[in-house]
Amino acid sequence: MSVRLSVFAVPGIPMVKPGDDIAGFILDGLAAMGETLADGDVVVVAQKIVSKTEGRLVALSTVTPSERAHELAGITGKDPRVVELVLRESNAVLRAKTNVLVVEQKLGLVIANAGIDRSNVEGGADDMALLLPVDPDASARALRTTIKARSGADVGVVVADSVGRAWRIGTSALAIGCAGLEPLWDQRGDVDMFGKVLEVTEVSIADQVAAAANLVMGEATEATPVAIVRGLTTPRNERPATVLIRPKEMDMFR
Amino acid sequence: MSVRLSVFAVPGIPMVKPGDDIAGFILDGLAAMGETLADGDVVVVAQKIVSKTEGRLVALSTVTPSERAHELAGITGKDPRVVELVLRESNAVLRAKTNVLVVEQKLGLVIANAGIDRSNVEGGADDMALLLPVDPDASARALRTTIKARSGADVGVVVADSVGRAWRIGTSALAIGCAGLEPLWDQRGDVDMFGKVLEVTEVSIADQVAAAANLVMGEATEATPVAIVRGLTTPRNERPATVLIRPKEMDMFR
Repeated sequence: MSVRLSVFAVPGIPMVKPGDDIAGFILDGLAAMGETLADGDVVVVAQKIVSKTEGRLVALSTVTPSERAHELAGITGKDPRVVELVLRESNAVLRAKTNVLVVEQKLGLVIANAGIDRSNVEGGADDMALLLPVDPDASARALRTTIKARSGADVGVVVADSVGRAWRIGTSALAIGCAGLEPLWDQRGDVDMFGKVLEVTEVSIADQVAAAANLVMGEATEATPVAIVRGLTTPRNERPATVLIRPKEMDMFR
Repeated sequence: MSVRLSVFAVPGIPMVKPGDDIAGFILDGLAAMGETLADGDVVVVAQKIVSKTEGRLVALSTVTPSERAHELAGITGKDPRVVELVLRESNAVLRAKTNVLVVEQKLGLVIANAGIDRSNVEGGADDMALLLPVDPDASARALRTTIKARSGADVGVVVADSVGRAWRIGTSALAIGCAGLEPLWDQRGDVDMFGKVLEVTEVSIADQVAAAANLVMGEATEATPVAIVRGLTTPRNERPATVLIRPKEMDMFR
């Protein structure tokens, strides 16, 4: 396990547009601060800029709500067009009440509003919605490959989203996409300090990396959607972040 | 928000016993690595060593299971004496099935086995159980006060526990106790980059600090139950970690 981590924001990432080159922005931002990426660094990227560069913006004026969307909009008080997008991005609605719409998003994530965001979106905050990437693991892999090609550094990439949680107040970041680091550290079979075999310890490395990075990433006026986590020494296998999603049949809380 | 965090484990913390002086171990460990605490550092301490020094160990041979404990032991396959302790430490049982017993622990935490741990406990791993601290916020405050008195440093303290989560695979650390840093960063009323007022963003700083620290803290053979998170610049108000517990009446997932 790691002994010392350094976690720092990458400055100067501009407002991104569809088709923009995130890897270029990251490498430029690092160069401007006199940093270069090293093998083993983990580049944590906010879902918002990944979604934007992938063109996952939808103009609400183009969305016609279904009957079901109108019904849920009535229950939740949300814009029926946003609810329609949430339904299109979801496998199932889990909870709906005033101001709350929690779903199983297409990827299997249990998340409010299918991860759809209306803040920090260009083009008039009330007119556009930003969907999650279609395949955040693929987004992470692509960014990792591009960074390797341009910088030579063999980095890990985490696509992070800040989400609400069962049982807890306040958002915390999760890894919704992952490449080049093992998202889940399976310690089952290891022994503890007294020689007792650990039976159930699997540690969510990627979620905790996302959470660490989130402490230096801006939510509101400070636009720092990228952070580097340096010094992680956990395994570097290549499983996707979807291994962090508890399968429905193993989930007692939905 | 912070720009750069340093997260490092404090080496050389010995096996602790009831009454041991955690602050002393931390200051000695830091001195041995040539570090001193600075104002604003957050000292993250694993719940296990807090509980042990507070004498929260129970010999299972002293526990007589109730009828209800036997019943739940039958359902879960767990030791009826451990189940009895779980019941004593809980307000309500939320889920019980094979290998799983999720409760509302006395503090209000939704947590498996009321946070009771049988691994890494001295005196024969099968004979002892370790309960959560009675008041982890008070534990954090006391440690903060002692560290201030001995070192002069005005630090924050987080008592961290690794827990399973709804919807996600793998454990992640939470703050069950907190002093000297604001556990929850309320951004409601702030404006985003486009001038839109944020309506719902409250960020769980303390949980994410615990998660960051957990990346350098050992679970199994590597005994590093203390880490320092340096560089956090979020507010330093004095609310307890209990503000991170979602009140039952606001919780749709239990």
